[in-house]
Amino acid sequence: MIVTIQKIRGADVVETEDTLAVEEPLEIKLAWREGTVSVQKPVSVTMRTPGHDEELAVGFLCTEGIINDRAAVEHAYSDGSTVLVILKTAPVLPVADRNFYAAAGCGICGKTGMDSLKLASPFAAVALPLRVPISVFYGLQEALQQKQVWFEQTGGLHAAALFSLDGECIVLREDIGRHNALDKVIGYALMGNQLPLEERILLLSGRAGFELIQKAYMAGVRVVAAVGAPSSLAVERAQECGMTLIGFLRGERFNVYTGWEAIGNEK
Amino acid sequence: MIVTIQKIRGADVVETEDTLAVEEPLEIKLAWREGTVSVQKPVSVTMRTPGHDEELAVGFLCTEGIINDRAAVEHAYSDGSTVLVILKTAPVLPVADRNFYAAAGCGICGKTGMDSLKLASPFAAVALPLRVPISVFYGLQEALQQKQVWFEQTGGLHAAALFSLDGECIVLREDIGRHNALDKVIGYALMGNQLPLEERILLLSGRAGFELIQKAYMAGVRVVAAVGAPSSLAVERAQECGMTLIGFLRGERFNVYTGWEAIGNEK
Repeated sequence: MIVTIQKIRGADVVETEDTLAVEEPLEIKLAWREGTVSVQKPVSVTMRTPGHDEELAVGFLCTEGIINDRAAVEHAYSDGSTVLVILKTAPVLPVADRNFYAAAGCGICGKTGMDSLKLASPFAAVALPLRVPISVFYGLQEALQQKQVWFEQTGGLHAAALFSLDGECIVLREDIGRHNALDKVIGYALMGNQLPLEERILLLSGRAGFELIQKAYMAGVRVVAAVGAPSSLAVERAQECGMTLIGFLRGERFNVYTGWEAIGNEK
Repeated sequence: MIVTIQKIRGADVVETEDTLAVEEPLEIKLAWREGTVSVQKPVSVTMRTPGHDEELAVGFLCTEGIINDRAAVEHAYSDGSTVLVILKTAPVLPVADRNFYAAAGCGICGKTGMDSLKLASPFAAVALPLRVPISVFYGLQEALQQKQVWFEQTGGLHAAALFSLDGECIVLREDIGRHNALDKVIGYALMGNQLPLEERILLLSGRAGFELIQKAYMAGVRVVAAVGAPSSLAVERAQECGMTLIGFLRGERFNVYTGWEAIGNEK
């Protein structure tokens, strides 16, 4: 979105055009059949950057523990402000764990305590030993930066990306909300039948908080690298989930906060 | 929180200590009396950095439109994981506007559409012409940076601060969530009987999205300056609310996205 602004540079005022990161509400709704009856339920409203809305909706359902499989989804329809996800069978909505009726956009609010936030992943059992050479991480931040087309223009978007264990970029999504960028990437993978993401590196353009680690875990991710700082609870949760968590990834420099054993020392 | 990490610098691996930004869940509960009956209701769970929890809770209630006055609050009690806010009278909870029972932590999820997100401010009517000299903004970003003690240590915290129209810092709060930092600042002001904040500049350490502008508006703020980029909806909402919105504030450089008329040209 392009707007006219006043640019102040010390004493100079210049009127010019500027490109804004687009932020718009998206409602996610579920529908399914129970016998001859059709049921429709609103699940969440999220502020997102338009684009890949179906991936966002499906990814959100996955990271909230409502679906974990391409086969659960009949189809997802977007009209630009609502995504209607048609499920093949009635979903198990996490009603009991929450204050509110249904799942909430940011994955946090509406839940009543730490235990209800720490959803168990359907892919938790598949853990085989993993070994990723240190050098694989060296180029990832630059690769991400080069592909962040929207950030380049607006300075206002987060990105999430999946890389192979060889450092090949598989998918990258940008969004004004970090959790949305991640849900889009996971939705993409789910729709392509690529879950669990146990042989992928998840790269985050910013900071890593609890919510992102929890979402990644729900999709079977075992290696997360963030360009920014991790939070205390992110490190704690990554540890509990047997995940490797890297922070402050810049060029050939990074910090390993947990899961050091999965990182090979050979270059 | 201090943890042991592996620091990778090219081929070198050094084991060292690192300070993490603390992230922990906080539950906000309301209580009040109806005749001889005590009522208690959970309102929200938010992931926050501990500290100033009572301010956070009270600020959240203000920016959600549940209270707008010091006189509404009898007392707020924190035990480190829950804040119980005792109100003097039964609150008007925004039940009808939402999918869910009550207000949600991030201010977005749980609400059903754009109109329910655009709560009207109790302070909307007080707008008098405002004129802030350009030069007042010059030093604000450096002032903020110097006071961000926690960010310095962790690289993982947002800040919100109020400045007088002369550029004097009145209060600064840091948090892992930008909306929490803002709610803390607003809670501080409310408890000090300082609302509406019509003669204050609100400074945000990062990006400005819709939610932050909406929250600021609920507390009567009329000038917002962000160190990062504003979103499309933030600019739109600021315009609707007659607010001045500045982005990319660095040293003597900044962009005015809306409300240029409130900024004086004299130095």
